[in-house]
Amino acid sequence: MIKVGIVGGTGYTGVELLRLLAQHPEADVRAITSRKDAGTAVADMFPSLRGRYALAFADPADAHLESCDVVYFATPHGVAMAQARELVTAGVKLIDLAADFRLKDPAVFAQWYGMPHTCPDLLAESVYGLPEVNREEVRRARIVGNPGCYPTAVQLGFLPLLEAGIVDAAHLVADCKSGVSGAGRKAEMGLLFAEASDNFKAYGVTGHRHHPEIVQGLNAAAGSPVSLVFTPHLVPMIRGIHATLYARLTDTRVDLQALFERRYAGEPFVDVMPPGSMPDTRSVRAANICRIAVHRPQDGDMALVLVVEDNLVKGAAGQAIQNMNLMFGLPETTGLSAPPVLP
Amino acid sequence: MIKVGIVGGTGYTGVELLRLLAQHPEADVRAITSRKDAGTAVADMFPSLRGRYALAFADPADAHLESCDVVYFATPHGVAMAQARELVTAGVKLIDLAADFRLKDPAVFAQWYGMPHTCPDLLAESVYGLPEVNREEVRRARIVGNPGCYPTAVQLGFLPLLEAGIVDAAHLVADCKSGVSGAGRKAEMGLLFAEASDNFKAYGVTGHRHHPEIVQGLNAAAGSPVSLVFTPHLVPMIRGIHATLYARLTDTRVDLQALFERRYAGEPFVDVMPPGSMPDTRSVRAANICRIAVHRPQDGDMALVLVVEDNLVKGAAGQAIQNMNLMFGLPETTGLSAPPVLP
Amino acid sequence: MIKVGIVGGTGYTGVELLRLLAQHPEADVRAITSRKDAGTAVADMFPSLRGRYALAFADPADAHLESCDVVYFATPHGVAMAQARELVTAGVKLIDLAADFRLKDPAVFAQWYGMPHTCPDLLAESVYGLPEVNREEVRRARIVGNPGCYPTAVQLGFLPLLEAGIVDAAHLVADCKSGVSGAGRKAEMGLLFAEASDNFKAYGVTGHRHHPEIVQGLNAAAGSPVSLVFTPHLVPMIRGIHATLYARLTDTRVDLQALFERRYAGEPFVDVMPPGSMPDTRSVRAANICRIAVHRPQDGDMALVLVVEDNLVKGAAGQAIQNMNLMFGLPETTGLSAPPVLP
Amino acid sequence: MIKVGIVGGTGYTGVELLRLLAQHPEADVRAITSRKDAGTAVADMFPSLRGRYALAFADPADAHLESCDVVYFATPHGVAMAQARELVTAGVKLIDLAADFRLKDPAVFAQWYGMPHTCPDLLAESVYGLPEVNREEVRRARIVGNPGCYPTAVQLGFLPLLEAGIVDAAHLVADCKSGVSGAGRKAEMGLLFAEASDNFKAYGVTGHRHHPEIVQGLNAAAGSPVSLVFTPHLVPMIRGIHATLYARLTDTRVDLQALFERRYAGEPFVDVMPPGSMPDTRSVRAANICRIAVHRPQDGDMALVLVVEDNLVKGAAGQAIQNMNLMFGLPETTGLSAPPVLP
Repeated sequence: MIKVGIVGGTGYTGVELLRLLAQHPEADVRAITSRKDAGTAVADMFPSLRGRYALAFADPADAHLESCDVVYFATPHGVAMAQARELVTAGVKLIDLAADFRLKDPAVFAQWYGMPHTCPDLLAESVYGLPEVNREEVRRARIVGNPGCYPTAVQLGFLPLLEAGIVDAAHLVADCKSGVSGAGRKAEMGLLFAEASDNFKAYGVTGHRHHPEIVQGLNAAAGSPVSLVFTPHLVPMIRGIHATLYARLTDTRVDLQALFERRYAGEPFVDVMPPGSMPDTRSVRAANICRIAVHRPQDGDMALVLVVEDNLVKGAAGQAIQNMNLMFGLPETTGLSAPPVLP
Repeated sequence: MIKVGIVGGTGYTGVELLRLLAQHPEADVRAITSRKDAGTAVADMFPSLRGRYALAFADPADAHLESCDVVYFATPHGVAMAQARELVTAGVKLIDLAADFRLKDPAVFAQWYGMPHTCPDLLAESVYGLPEVNREEVRRARIVGNPGCYPTAVQLGFLPLLEAGIVDAAHLVADCKSGVSGAGRKAEMGLLFAEASDNFKAYGVTGHRHHPEIVQGLNAAAGSPVSLVFTPHLVPMIRGIHATLYARLTDTRVDLQALFERRYAGEPFVDVMPPGSMPDTRSVRAANICRIAVHRPQDGDMALVLVVEDNLVKGAAGQAIQNMNLMFGLPETTGLSAPPVLP
Repeated sequence: MIKVGIVGGTGYTGVELLRLLAQHPEADVRAITSRKDAGTAVADMFPSLRGRYALAFADPADAHLESCDVVYFATPHGVAMAQARELVTAGVKLIDLAADFRLKDPAVFAQWYGMPHTCPDLLAESVYGLPEVNREEVRRARIVGNPGCYPTAVQLGFLPLLEAGIVDAAHLVADCKSGVSGAGRKAEMGLLFAEASDNFKAYGVTGHRHHPEIVQGLNAAAGSPVSLVFTPHLVPMIRGIHATLYARLTDTRVDLQALFERRYAGEPFVDVMPPGSMPDTRSVRAANICRIAVHRPQDGDMALVLVVEDNLVKGAAGQAIQNMNLMFGLPETTGLSAPPVLP
Repeated sequence: MIKVGIVGGTGYTGVELLRLLAQHPEADVRAITSRKDAGTAVADMFPSLRGRYALAFADPADAHLESCDVVYFATPHGVAMAQARELVTAGVKLIDLAADFRLKDPAVFAQWYGMPHTCPDLLAESVYGLPEVNREEVRRARIVGNPGCYPTAVQLGFLPLLEAGIVDAAHLVADCKSGVSGAGRKAEMGLLFAEASDNFKAYGVTGHRHHPEIVQGLNAAAGSPVSLVFTPHLVPMIRGIHATLYARLTDTRVDLQALFERRYAGEPFVDVMPPGSMPDTRSVRAANICRIAVHRPQDGDMALVLVVEDNLVKGAAGQAIQNMNLMFGLPETTGLSAPPVLP
């Protein structure tokens, strides 16, 4: 059994980790921390978990995280990097669901997150946890930076096109839509039911922190700098991301369907849909799956890629567990096989 | 492995059976029928199940249901009773998620469902599949009438009070609220998103088919005829039932909390919440759990019982699998342990 | 033109007042205050009002409310009573949408709102603004306590039964359901989209501030003390209240339909629906209407009353304008004739 | 008073016409037809309109439409063109909310709508009712083809860029999102609450009937053929369209904000938002307004235009009334001044 610790488990990625790990046959959650809610039983904060966890939230000082095999950080950015060295030194593996180990360039991190990176050496050795790109590196990693929700969807959708070098990489468009849980479990006016329900809007148009993360991955796939317009929108639904991707084809003779199927052959959590498909977000609700459909509208010179994922699963907690499975030599799908919940 | 057949698997209880059975270690779905959609792959109709089922919907004539160990009927009423004798004779156990084997009195069935009961002898031997009441009978049953969604919630909420004989059974009130999936997967105007969203209303006030089913169970619990006002309402949510139950206490000295805890001690799927609780439907979303809280408002002479369940799980497919587990001597919780999905 | 001031216009009742007053031919909003948002243009906070108001939120000190003809308080409780004397002395009429002038007994106010009432003499002269009960008093009032959203619906539903003296007033049940805007525009965790959507729950079961307000009105109608169980629930919709009311009939010979039609004959904003109706909340969305249907389920001895209103209109801002119309001798329906928005 | 007839008033555009016309001081709805629901009172089908209309739906044969001044067609395509000649000959003006008079080329109509156009001469004289483009022609028109919901939003968003000739018109992208009412009031499985709620998906990717209509308008604005990828998506909300438009700038020195403000200066129903804005659909809910914001992300060479409208108002019934006002010489805003409903 893998001894698991969770730092900051009171948000949506935290409770999702708890839900998924309750079904994981090789994981045992030993500690979960929350400064603010120390002493509160997990089952009191999340009645959905009554009978599943005897644990209470603990103060970080009392949590003995160093005796865990792996610690997940489901915290705001800045927390994981503050504790990483001590844990790694103690032999604990670390999976950060925030942004501390996503951006390889500490200067870019500092620019977008408004604080210097405090352990650039650990950042350098850490691995960006997108298994479909870095599977072998993840297996050997001590620290994994778990990708953001939008970056997972956008990268998986653009990768085959960029790796094949068949699109105008200077004019990529990612029109993305996310359910409200993507904004986290925080009491903000704009996230109220009476504000977000029966409504649709763009946000973050003037600059979103997932933009540099996406570009970093696309640059690597393209082998040269890309240019991307990334427009996130807020959808009145709880979970789910839909990325609608546009790229001008520089070579229209390529069989896009075959290209995508080849790229993701054997991938347990990427499902290339049949030609003509339009995946809906509920088809992956609560499950660690990314479904992709590729189109060439009116047989023109634009590629259209539709990508869906559950932002809390393949976009966060599920992918984190997928990474844990790799890091501990387990079958990659362990504990992640429950089908999506539909309707 | 239990060989499973499903008749009429294209509705919400059908796809929910498929979702839950995909996680059941002892069940193997061998056949699923649909006259209208014969030939369509399950995964084409329900992309959420891509990679989980190689099956296609079959015409009933070709489905070889008689070679199954158990057949679920996820059909409109009238279908199960037409096929019951042949299947039972072939040694197949039968779980009907419709109403054919719920009402013990064929005349009451005929009155509410507008057709005569065609196999009253089988009805007589069949068992009403509410394990919290009929667990031992279910174990020995060849035919189980799986309870309706409202009846499950309302009975579980009223039973402790009626069995204890401490309420005025002539003036029971069940004010019930259901998510829209409770109405089934059928193209009706009133169930459209643009009609049901951002809206709330009562329906079926002049007579709902679950009324006689509930009363039948409450009569048995009370040991004498009860009188019930049952008001269902439609909630703009996909899944979930919330029953708000009112009964005048004839004895206000009873410790209601202790009464409920005692009644459901050891029940794997009934969770009596701590005093003062107000359960929300999402705390049981997608899971086979019924949570109950009991109150005595202003320390007066009214008992208030709050009951939540997922209408598709404890109110339908999950309870059906719970019954299958009992009928086949499996631990009752087999395949039903995934935690609720929250948020 | 009536010169109108609004204190505390940044909440949902505030913006609803602005929306409705923009259509009122005899009202001119001269001042709107907000300490926190002083200086912000109304149209910047609420883009839906772009082009409708040149006003900015003003600091209360600069708002010259004493030069208005009427001031609405769309504030938390405690604010109106602090400013009432000064305004009334200056000849300004006052309509409080909070609770300061609802409960006639200052001790009851203190008990439920946790603060002493600071102007019991003004409370004594103030009028409870339910025109269907107090129309003439409202016409002459200097201070109107605008009813709460639940109290409006519950009182209008029970009044005919209690006034006729045909129900057991010791066991009234009001099972009420409200859209999320009823909780106000405040950043609380439980009101987040990701918490309140696709969910249903009871709340306030152990004591809700609208309980004493409702009871006060029902006592008056009955002519003697009533006993009420009041259970509010949160519905995943933006606007709307549905009250489902139960009362045991002590006389079952009364024609309930005729009783209700008679009681509300000529009322411009109460619509008694035809027999058998089940009103939905959207049928009054955004309009100052209360629709009521009365039933006697299974011809038994229980009366069932279904009441719908828009909590922000007939349950708040619309009723406040209805009261203003009465106070200023205008036709009661002035500015309130826009039909409900459906779908 | 303008005598108004409505053909086919049982859908969402029909009931929206009724709602808006009830507030129009110069319009009197004399007849409304529905073959299927002839004899049903309007107020029985739409309780939101109780007390507003004494009318019942009439069989078209009995409706005496020829005595009206104007007839709206809120029908499927094919109906208006069948009755147009008779009405026009009788001196009745005609506003078709379906597609019969939108596409100027009968061959294109036939290709997309699967039927020949039966009155190409009337089509030739008819006017495409986008007042921001064809105001003067609308004033003189006998027949107006009221634009589709998507085409209104997409055209208004792209027009300034195309008229200025500063974008690559061969690679336009319109990523559009619509509330469910856009699909009409029809009982289809995919429009059910339990299917469309808590979900997001693209649809019509392989060809949507609004595509040729949009392109026709954009071609005219550009003065040469454009190429457009148009991707509609279904949003779990009742009303609202959000168009997110992308175009590569061929000249990045143009002040886009000024360009848009100039283009729509004086337009009563187009609101160019301040720089940096991200309009939400609820800011136009139930009102005849189109709000537009223009961005140049990261100061690059892509223009990003955000457009919102209510698909049933500026995208259908409201624009139709705007056209009627023009056709009858009324102030363009008559009856259309109610502010948006928020929240």
